[in-house]
Amino acid sequence: MGEALRVGIAGLGTVGASVVRVLTDKAAELTRQCGREVVVVAVSARDRNKDRGIALADAAWFDDPVALAKKAEIDVFVELIGGETGIAKDCVEAALAAGRHVVTANKALLAANGVALAEKAEKRGVLLNYEAAVAGGIPVIKTMREAMAGNTISRVFGILNGTCNYILTRMEEDGLSFADCLADAQRLGYAEADPTFDIEGHDTAHKLSLLTSLAFGTRISAGDIYMEGISNITQADIRAAGELGYRIKLLGVAQRTESGIEQRVHPTMVPTASVIAQVDGVTNAVAIETDILGELLLSGPGAGGNATASAVVGDIADIAKASPGFQHGPVFGRPARELAPYKRARMRAHAGGYFIRLTVIDRAGAFAAIAKRMAANDISLESIVQHANGENGADRKTVILVTHETTEAAVRKAVDGITRDGHVVDTPQVIRIERAE
Amino acid sequence: MGEALRVGIAGLGTVGASVVRVLTDKAAELTRQCGREVVVVAVSARDRNKDRGIALADAAWFDDPVALAKKAEIDVFVELIGGETGIAKDCVEAALAAGRHVVTANKALLAANGVALAEKAEKRGVLLNYEAAVAGGIPVIKTMREAMAGNTISRVFGILNGTCNYILTRMEEDGLSFADCLADAQRLGYAEADPTFDIEGHDTAHKLSLLTSLAFGTRISAGDIYMEGISNITQADIRAAGELGYRIKLLGVAQRTESGIEQRVHPTMVPTASVIAQVDGVTNAVAIETDILGELLLSGPGAGGNATASAVVGDIADIAKASPGFQHGPVFGRPARELAPYKRARMRAHAGGYFIRLTVIDRAGAFAAIAKRMAANDISLESIVQHANGENGADRKTVILVTHETTEAAVRKAVDGITRDGHVVDTPQVIRIERAE
Repeated sequence: MGEALRVGIAGLGTVGASVVRVLTDKAAELTRQCGREVVVVAVSARDRNKDRGIALADAAWFDDPVALAKKAEIDVFVELIGGETGIAKDCVEAALAAGRHVVTANKALLAANGVALAEKAEKRGVLLNYEAAVAGGIPVIKTMREAMAGNTISRVFGILNGTCNYILTRMEEDGLSFADCLADAQRLGYAEADPTFDIEGHDTAHKLSLLTSLAFGTRISAGDIYMEGISNITQADIRAAGELGYRIKLLGVAQRTESGIEQRVHPTMVPTASVIAQVDGVTNAVAIETDILGELLLSGPGAGGNATASAVVGDIADIAKASPGFQHGPVFGRPARELAPYKRARMRAHAGGYFIRLTVIDRAGAFAAIAKRMAANDISLESIVQHANGENGADRKTVILVTHETTEAAVRKAVDGITRDGHVVDTPQVIRIERAE
Repeated sequence: MGEALRVGIAGLGTVGASVVRVLTDKAAELTRQCGREVVVVAVSARDRNKDRGIALADAAWFDDPVALAKKAEIDVFVELIGGETGIAKDCVEAALAAGRHVVTANKALLAANGVALAEKAEKRGVLLNYEAAVAGGIPVIKTMREAMAGNTISRVFGILNGTCNYILTRMEEDGLSFADCLADAQRLGYAEADPTFDIEGHDTAHKLSLLTSLAFGTRISAGDIYMEGISNITQADIRAAGELGYRIKLLGVAQRTESGIEQRVHPTMVPTASVIAQVDGVTNAVAIETDILGELLLSGPGAGGNATASAVVGDIADIAKASPGFQHGPVFGRPARELAPYKRARMRAHAGGYFIRLTVIDRAGAFAAIAKRMAANDISLESIVQHANGENGADRKTVILVTHETTEAAVRKAVDGITRDGHVVDTPQVIRIERAE
């Protein structure tokens, strides 16, 4: 049996406390799985005296996680503080400089600094593992780094934010408004008091940027992501989607196209018959499409103390099993300095099907004008639904259009034209459709 | 860059040819991912002159795969011949004895000899990888061996046979009989001329036995698996399932219980709203339930040359990345000699819900007798459906019962009693219900 792996943990919030609990409760299993003991020898958090329900007496306490990174006798530094800059960045850099392996759950830090940190880790010959940063307990990072050898990935997409998926699921199951479902989510702890970061798509975008790098071997570009959140999704959209055989999910999608890489986060219609359409509540899922394998889907808990701790512990165990001098795999699947520049495909070139919901003034010529705008932009229609009873008043009709494959540019022009024609009230709702198996 | 990894491949059928093709076409990507070249230096198959559409001129040819295993200058021996005994077993043993790492897709070989081969591999200090043996291209073996650290698995279950899943999907989508769908499957190459091995559950059982060992740390016990195939599933079952909110899949399930480990393969009702219920056609899926993570689902192509080749190439790449002296992970998640004895839980102790379909003679007292038998065995009913119009003739009614959680023993006694009472014709259909998310 090898020497014990000495772990230092910075951050003892929900995830940190869960990690300590698992490492303690499952010590025997881990020793057997790893061929060596895994021991927490140092910890750091803001409040030393807080009762977290975990046993820390044997660990050295550090008020300052940077000091822990530099001075503690550890093999692995686990960063569970969070945040893109400041103390999380400082202590991770200090740990790498000191030759410690690093495990982190910090998507924001990696989205902003991942490539630079990867270069430091690879230069120093240590591992930087981040399974917990994307899709909670789902082992998507391991899958993409290790199980996709020989495969060329064409698309990666997923449900990466439990807050949004919970809200959309509740809207569909209970027929409630977005606002009511958001309030419920906040009450249950699935959404923050200020929910913007989740519901406007930023959290999904950070996670997607890491998947993009792994999928396409490009430098991380988290700021270059088209984003639309879920706050404009209405019951009318959800019901129409259901009738047409779709469900609405907030997807993060990264796709290679001729003009570069599309990274986009937006409410998306997926076929009800697809596997990903059934991923409900706070569950997350990631789909990976490749030339050799086909389409692989992974789904499971995307957040929560235990689910995230499972990913952190898996990363620690991988380090425990690697012997000194082991040729460590590159952080983002290829050496950081070999990551290709990120070339963004313009959103207007996006090709796909679209759902368009219009509130039309019920008078002669209205529909003809809409049809003319579609035709003028070469958009052919798969479905047209006009409800007999105006939901918005006697002189209003809801018109739903589902297009065949067309482009973002064509749809924007057509919808702008329809708006200018003056036959519609309210902003047209446009939701992109995504293929899924 | 490290020295090239030298690969010998025994078996150049659909999968073997696909593996060679991928290693050739993707050589540059693999070199970058692995940090070293991967080169096929030796091959063996039955017919040297067959045109397989692959480039083999640079590889040494061996008519005898055992000779290849012993004499070829290789680092990795890839066994893609198949079959439980005979030449596949001989050449794998020869390769391990010669100190070569082994990659195999051979579920039958591992189901029968996996523990003994694992002991040989671990003693010799070489890897034995078998991702392609279970669920085709889905990286379930890697996930269970590497991503579940600290987790205690309570249940693992899945759709592991594409033939059966294809047939059941077609029956549901097209309303055809089992026999018609089987004939279609055979025509399309999804089922063999003699389909017994697939449709009676043997293939699923072999694969399940490997998952059981990984999940529970027990010695493989492939002969000790309760099996029922899909040949008795009728349209009446499928339609009733749909009305009640279920779909029928052939599942392999391994579950820890108080009295031991249940291993079972049988047609199963899963909730239509679950993710696994949407896994259709030849797609496979594996669900892993654990205490820390929760429920993880992986789905993707379970068979086919390319999908299986993807798994084989992933295994080869893992070996390429491991440096000499690397502490290799144990074949079945813990050292083979530490695998616990397999203790089988009796099927009669199985607890769960049941779907029971009876063809009842339409006369007074028939239903009361059925209800009495249920009550006598402490079985409470969640749903009772009796169709007004007898499908089987004017004096026959179809009665469908869905039980709350009960035991296999209770259901068997109740159904035996119902049969003896004489109010039913035909054999009662009993289909177990499985919880899934």
